[in-house]
Amino acid sequence: MAKQLRIGMVGYGFMGRTHSNAYRRVPNFFNLEYTPVLKAVCARDAEKAKAFADQWGYESIESDWRKLVERSDIDAIDICTPNNLHKDIALAAAANGKMILCEKPLSMNVAEGEEMCEAVEKAKVLNTVWYNYRRVPAVTYAKQLIDEGKLGRIFHYRANFLQDWTISADLPQGGAALWRLDAAAAGSGVTGDLLAHCIDTAIWLNGGISTVNAMTETFVKERKHTLTGKVEKVGIDDACAFLCRFDNGSLGLFESTRYARGHKALYTFEINGEHASIKWDLHDLHRLQWFDHRTPGPLRAWSSIHVTDGDHPYMDHWWVPGLQIGYEHTFVHQVADFLEGVAKGESTGPTFRDALETQKVCDAVLNSAKEMAWKNI
Amino acid sequence: MAKQLRIGMVGYGFMGRTHSNAYRRVPNFFNLEYTPVLKAVCARDAEKAKAFADQWGYESIESDWRKLVERSDIDAIDICTPNNLHKDIALAAAANGKMILCEKPLSMNVAEGEEMCEAVEKAKVLNTVWYNYRRVPAVTYAKQLIDEGKLGRIFHYRANFLQDWTISADLPQGGAALWRLDAAAAGSGVTGDLLAHCIDTAIWLNGGISTVNAMTETFVKERKHTLTGKVEKVGIDDACAFLCRFDNGSLGLFESTRYARGHKALYTFEINGEHASIKWDLHDLHRLQWFDHRTPGPLRAWSSIHVTDGDHPYMDHWWVPGLQIGYEHTFVHQVADFLEGVAKGESTGPTFRDALETQKVCDAVLNSAKEMAWKNI
Amino acid sequence: MAKQLRIGMVGYGFMGRTHSNAYRRVPNFFNLEYTPVLKAVCARDAEKAKAFADQWGYESIESDWRKLVERSDIDAIDICTPNNLHKDIALAAAANGKMILCEKPLSMNVAEGEEMCEAVEKAKVLNTVWYNYRRVPAVTYAKQLIDEGKLGRIFHYRANFLQDWTISADLPQGGAALWRLDAAAAGSGVTGDLLAHCIDTAIWLNGGISTVNAMTETFVKERKHTLTGKVEKVGIDDACAFLCRFDNGSLGLFESTRYARGHKALYTFEINGEHASIKWDLHDLHRLQWFDHRTPGPLRAWSSIHVTDGDHPYMDHWWVPGLQIGYEHTFVHQVADFLEGVAKGESTGPTFRDALETQKVCDAVLNSAKEMAWKNI
Amino acid sequence: MAKQLRIGMVGYGFMGRTHSNAYRRVPNFFNLEYTPVLKAVCARDAEKAKAFADQWGYESIESDWRKLVERSDIDAIDICTPNNLHKDIALAAAANGKMILCEKPLSMNVAEGEEMCEAVEKAKVLNTVWYNYRRVPAVTYAKQLIDEGKLGRIFHYRANFLQDWTISADLPQGGAALWRLDAAAAGSGVTGDLLAHCIDTAIWLNGGISTVNAMTETFVKERKHTLTGKVEKVGIDDACAFLCRFDNGSLGLFESTRYARGHKALYTFEINGEHASIKWDLHDLHRLQWFDHRTPGPLRAWSSIHVTDGDHPYMDHWWVPGLQIGYEHTFVHQVADFLEGVAKGESTGPTFRDALETQKVCDAVLNSAKEMAWKNI
Repeated sequence: MAKQLRIGMVGYGFMGRTHSNAYRRVPNFFNLEYTPVLKAVCARDAEKAKAFADQWGYESIESDWRKLVERSDIDAIDICTPNNLHKDIALAAAANGKMILCEKPLSMNVAEGEEMCEAVEKAKVLNTVWYNYRRVPAVTYAKQLIDEGKLGRIFHYRANFLQDWTISADLPQGGAALWRLDAAAAGSGVTGDLLAHCIDTAIWLNGGISTVNAMTETFVKERKHTLTGKVEKVGIDDACAFLCRFDNGSLGLFESTRYARGHKALYTFEINGEHASIKWDLHDLHRLQWFDHRTPGPLRAWSSIHVTDGDHPYMDHWWVPGLQIGYEHTFVHQVADFLEGVAKGESTGPTFRDALETQKVCDAVLNSAKEMAWKNI
Repeated sequence: MAKQLRIGMVGYGFMGRTHSNAYRRVPNFFNLEYTPVLKAVCARDAEKAKAFADQWGYESIESDWRKLVERSDIDAIDICTPNNLHKDIALAAAANGKMILCEKPLSMNVAEGEEMCEAVEKAKVLNTVWYNYRRVPAVTYAKQLIDEGKLGRIFHYRANFLQDWTISADLPQGGAALWRLDAAAAGSGVTGDLLAHCIDTAIWLNGGISTVNAMTETFVKERKHTLTGKVEKVGIDDACAFLCRFDNGSLGLFESTRYARGHKALYTFEINGEHASIKWDLHDLHRLQWFDHRTPGPLRAWSSIHVTDGDHPYMDHWWVPGLQIGYEHTFVHQVADFLEGVAKGESTGPTFRDALETQKVCDAVLNSAKEMAWKNI
Repeated sequence: MAKQLRIGMVGYGFMGRTHSNAYRRVPNFFNLEYTPVLKAVCARDAEKAKAFADQWGYESIESDWRKLVERSDIDAIDICTPNNLHKDIALAAAANGKMILCEKPLSMNVAEGEEMCEAVEKAKVLNTVWYNYRRVPAVTYAKQLIDEGKLGRIFHYRANFLQDWTISADLPQGGAALWRLDAAAAGSGVTGDLLAHCIDTAIWLNGGISTVNAMTETFVKERKHTLTGKVEKVGIDDACAFLCRFDNGSLGLFESTRYARGHKALYTFEINGEHASIKWDLHDLHRLQWFDHRTPGPLRAWSSIHVTDGDHPYMDHWWVPGLQIGYEHTFVHQVADFLEGVAKGESTGPTFRDALETQKVCDAVLNSAKEMAWKNI
Repeated sequence: MAKQLRIGMVGYGFMGRTHSNAYRRVPNFFNLEYTPVLKAVCARDAEKAKAFADQWGYESIESDWRKLVERSDIDAIDICTPNNLHKDIALAAAANGKMILCEKPLSMNVAEGEEMCEAVEKAKVLNTVWYNYRRVPAVTYAKQLIDEGKLGRIFHYRANFLQDWTISADLPQGGAALWRLDAAAAGSGVTGDLLAHCIDTAIWLNGGISTVNAMTETFVKERKHTLTGKVEKVGIDDACAFLCRFDNGSLGLFESTRYARGHKALYTFEINGEHASIKWDLHDLHRLQWFDHRTPGPLRAWSSIHVTDGDHPYMDHWWVPGLQIGYEHTFVHQVADFLEGVAKGESTGPTFRDALETQKVCDAVLNSAKEMAWKNI
C-alpha cells in the first residue's frame, strides 16, 4: 500500500493545471513508495477554487493561503502563484514544517531567495523548484552525455527562449491572465520568466556563470493595466540578451524575447565541446541533435536522436519506441523524482539553493543592463 | 453532476494501458456530460488483472470475458485482446446490449467483420474502433483542410508505415508479448497491424478505394514459437506494398514493413491535390506539412505547421501554443468524442461499419498478393 | 600539354547547356590527360545554333547531324536531342567511329536500345549515357557505403521522382520546349523521363530488377499540340508507379508523377538494409541521410551528412567543407570520369549496355501497366 | 561584340580560384555588354603563378604587384591577398586609375579603410568588396522582402558564423595556408574573417549599427608559427560575440567562432519583424525560411522556400526549378553585377565606402572586447 503525500496547492492557473495533472498521472506510470493525494487547492476566489477542485479532484478548497499552510492534513505546499507571493508563502510553509514545491523563478530577487533558502534549510523541509525542462527526456539525456565526458572541454554554450505573443500594443498588462507583464507581480519580464529556464538548464549542464553583460529592451512602453483600467508604464523587459563566461572557461550567449515573430515557445540550447556538440529545441522536444567528431570522417554528421526508446531517460515508463510524449510529462517526471526523494528524505534538484544560483544570474543580468557594464555573479 | 459511463475492459496489454489512461484523463481536460468509470478489467490471468486494476484504478476484475459482458453494472465493453477474439467478444457484448469500443483491426477477415457489424446494428449499440490516428490534431486538421476543398481535385495519395523491430531472426513469435507475429492470433502481419491504420486514414481523408494490386514478403521464414517452444513457419507478412485507385480517380501507393532499419513507427502520408498538398508523419506528430500553390510565386513553399495552437483541433483543451502533446492524447480525444456521441445517442467514427471498409481493402490486398493480380474491393 | 577530345554536340536545349558547361569547367577543376574542345554544335535552326555556339564557345555549327558525325575533326558525338533521334544519330556516329555521349533514356524502347548497343560494341567506340545523378557526391558516397557492405542484406528500396509542372490543362504538348509531353518524340512520359533516372540509380546501387507490376495514369487526356495547333490526345503517362522485386530478394517501390503539387524535382530514394539505411533527395542534393544500427542504443539516430568535405567523392576538386556545389556539377563529374576513361581506353558507366538494362525495366513497366499484370524483365 | 574588362589578379589562393571561376563563367550565363578577360595573375612565387595561370587561362603572370597595377593592358585589379596587403595595393591601383575588386575585409582597421576610400573616390575608380553572401539568391530575396516592407518594424537581428576547423592545438599559424591565424597578416581572427560577413549582410538588410558590446576569446594561446618554426603567442580572436543596437531600434546579437564542433561554415541569420520573420543558413544556402503572421491563424507556419525558381533573384540565369546552385555562384553574380555597373559607370555595392562601415563595427567590437565596455560606432 502506497504512502500518501498530501498536497496543498496555492494557485489554479496554467501551472496549477500542469502540476495537478502530474500528481494524478504519476501513480499510473511510476511504481513509487509515495502517492500524491490532492487535499486542497487555495485561491482567493472561492468559486474558481471550487471549479478547479472539481475538475482535478481536490478534496477541499481554501481561500487564504495562511490557513492552507497551517493545515495538519497536508504534507507539502505547491506554490503556483505570481512571483511576488512566493516568498511569504514559502516562509510560512517552512515555518509549518511543510515540504515545498515552488514555481520558478524562485523569488523576485536574490534577497528574497536567500531568505527562502535559509527558511527551508533551517526548517529542514524538502524543497524543489519547478524548472521542469531539466526533465524533458532529451534534456536529461544531454546531461548524461555531458556527465559521461563525451563532449570534452566545453567552448561554447548558447541558449534562446523566443516567443511572439506580446507584440500587439493592444494587449493589456496585469491581472490574473497577464500578471507576467506586470512588474509588480512578476519582478521582471522575459528575464525571470524565460531566461531563468535557460540559466537553470545551463548551470545544470555546464556549471556556474561567473560574469555577465546584458542588454534589455521594452518595445511597448505603455499598456493598459487590467486592474486599474489605466494606461500605465510597462516596467518589465520585453527582451533581454546577455554575454557571459562560465567557470569552466566556456563562453555563453543567451537571448530571450516575446517579440520574435513566428516563435511560440522556442527554447533552444546548444553546447559545443572539444569532441562533440549537442542541440535541443522545445518545439521538437522529443529530439536531441548530436554531433560526434570521433565518428569516422566522411560519416561525421549531426544526427537527430528520436528520444523515445526504453533506454532513454524516463521513457521506459511510457509507450514504445517512436511514440512521442509531450510538454506535460516533464512535470510528471519531476513529481516522480520528488516522490523518490521523499522516500529517501532528500530534496530533489533543483532545490531552492540551486534556484538561488539562477536568481543571482538574473539579478546580475538586470543590473548589467541597467548599468551597461559587466557584472560578476 | 456527470453521468457515468461504466467501462469493462478485456485485455491489459499495451492497448489496455493507452485506453485506461484515456478514460482517466478525459474528465480533467474535457467538460462532458458523461464521465468514464473503470468498473472492471478482465484477463485470464487473475494476478495480472489484479495488478493492472491496481495500477489504473479498476474497481474489480474478471477472468472470463463472458462474465464481464453479462455484468449489469457495465455500460460499455472495451476490447483490447488479440484480433482472433474480437468477434466472439463483440457478438456477446452486443447480445448483452453493451456499447463496444474495439481495438483495430476490426476482425480477422471480412466475413467476421460483417457478422460484427450486423450484431451491433441489430442490437443498436453504440460502437467505435480504435483507429486512433484520426485524432492526432494534425491529422484532424488535414481532414478539415480537405473538407474545406482547399486541395481541389486529388491526384495522389501515398502512405507508409515503417518499423524495424523484427529484423532479428532470434525474435520468437506468439505469446502475450509477440502475438502480432503469430498468424493464428493476428490474422495477418503488417497488413492488419499497420497498413490498416494507413487505409483507415486514407478512406477517411480521400474516400473509397476501388482496386488494389499488392506484393507481400516474409523475410524471416521460421521463428521459434513462444507457446510451443518449437521453430515454426512464420505465417504473417513481414512487409506489404500495394498500388491502388481511389473512387475519386486518384492513385494510391501504400507500403508497410517491420524491416525498414531506422524507422521506429514511421507512419507517413501525403496527399497531392490540384491546389495544395499535405504531408504528415508520426515521428513528429505535432506538425503538418502544407504547400499551397495559391501563395504568390516566389514565396511558394512547404510550411511546417506546429499544430499546438488553440485554433487547432482539440488543442484548446491542452496547454499553450508551442507546447506539444503526444501519442497518448489521440486516445483521450477518441474517448472524448465517444462520450459526446453517447450523450447524443450516436456512434462516433470510425464505427464497425467504417472499419469494415478498411477490412475489405486489407483482405483484397492479401488476396492480390497471393494471386499476383489486381483485385477489386 | 593536354590532349584534346573534340566534341560535336547535337541539340542546344537545356541538356545542351548542362553539357557545354561541363566541358568548359572540367579543365579548371580536374587535372586530366584529356581536355574537351568544343568543335561544333548542330541544330536544324542555324541561327539558334549560331547563338548557342557564341554563348558557349563552339568553334563552328552544323545544321545536319549527318554531316556532323562525318566530320574528321571530331572525336565524340554528344546526343542531346529528343529521344526519337537517339538511335539514328548513335548508329551513324558509331559507324563513323565516334565516341558517343548520349542523353537518357537510351532509346524509345528496348529494340532500339539493343541495336544501339550492338552498334557501339561492334564499332568498339567508347560510350556513356548521361544518367547524371550517379555523380551527385552524396549518391556516389551512398554507392561506396553499399559496396563496403555497410548495409548488410537489403530488404527495401524505394524511389520517387515527383514534379508538378504539368498540372495546368492549358499547357500545350510538343515542339522544342515541350517535346517531353509528346509521345512521338519522347516515347513515354514520366517513365522514360523521370523513372528512368530512379531505375538507373537503383540498378547501380541495388542490382538487377527481376519482375515489376505497374500502374500508369494520364490525368489530362487532351492538350493542344504546338506543332499542329490542334487539341490532340495525350499519349504519355502523367504518372507511373510500380512494385518490383530485385534479384537480391529486396522489394522495390517506385513512383513518378508530374502532378505532385509542391514538388519541383523531388527525386528521392531510400535503401533499408539489415544494419543500416540510406536516404537521399535531390532538393538538398548535398546531404545524405544515414542510419547505422551498430551505433550504441541511445545514440542511434538518422544523421544528415553534409557531403562537402575533401574526403567525400569529387569534393576535393571544389571548395572547402560546408560550401555546397549544385546540380550542374554532376555533369562536370561525368565528363571528368569519361575523360579518364578515354585516357585508359575504357567506357565509363553507365554505358549503353548499362542503360539498356534500365530500358528493359521501363518497357516492362509500361507493358505491365497496359496489361495489368506482373512482367518479368 | 562584347567589350572587354581586362583583369589583373593579385593572389592565387582559395579566393583566387573563386574569382577566376566567376570571371570565366559569367559570359556563359549572363548576356552583358562587358566580358572579363584574364590578362594576368600576380604572385611572388612565379612558378605557382604560372601553374595557376595555366589552370585558369590567365594570359600572363607577374611576380610584383607594383608592376601589375601599372600595366596599361589591365582595367581592373582584383585583390585576393592577405588583409595586410589590401591597402597598399588598392592605393597603387587607384593611383593608376584601375578599377578595384578587393577581398573582404576591406582593411586591417578603420584608418587604413578610410585611406582606401579616399583614394578610390579621389581617383574616381569603380570599386567593390567581395562580400559575396549578399548575392546568394536566398539572401538577395530576403533583401527584396525587407525592402518591400513585408516585415514591418524590426525587433531583432541575430547572426552566427560558426566553424570548427582550428580546435586542434597542433594546427600551426601563419604562412600561405594559415595566414588567417596570424594576426600580423589577418589583423584579427573571426571578427574580420567571419563576423565581417555577418555585419555586412546585417547593415545591408537592417541598416546601421550604433553601439556594440563584445567579448572575445583565444582558446589556444600558443601555436607554432609556420614562417618562424617557433611556438608563438596567438594574436587573433578564436571566438567573438557581441550585443548591439541598430539605428532602427532593433536589437542585435552576433557570434562567431572556429570552435563550434560540428559546424563547418554555418553562417546563419534571422530577422524578426512585426509582421514576418526570415531565417537563412549557409549550409542549405538555396533555402529561405519565412514566417508571415498575416497568414490565417491555423495555417501560420515557417515555410522553407526552395529558392530555385525563375522568379527568384538570379535564378533565371541557371537551370530549372528544384535544381540547386551553390557557393561559387555568389561570385559569378557579383561579377555580373559589377560588369553591369561598369557599363553604367557606377560602382556596385558593397563599395569600399560600404565596407568601411563594416570595418567600423569590427574595430568597435574589438575595442569593446578589450576594454569591456559599450562602444559607439
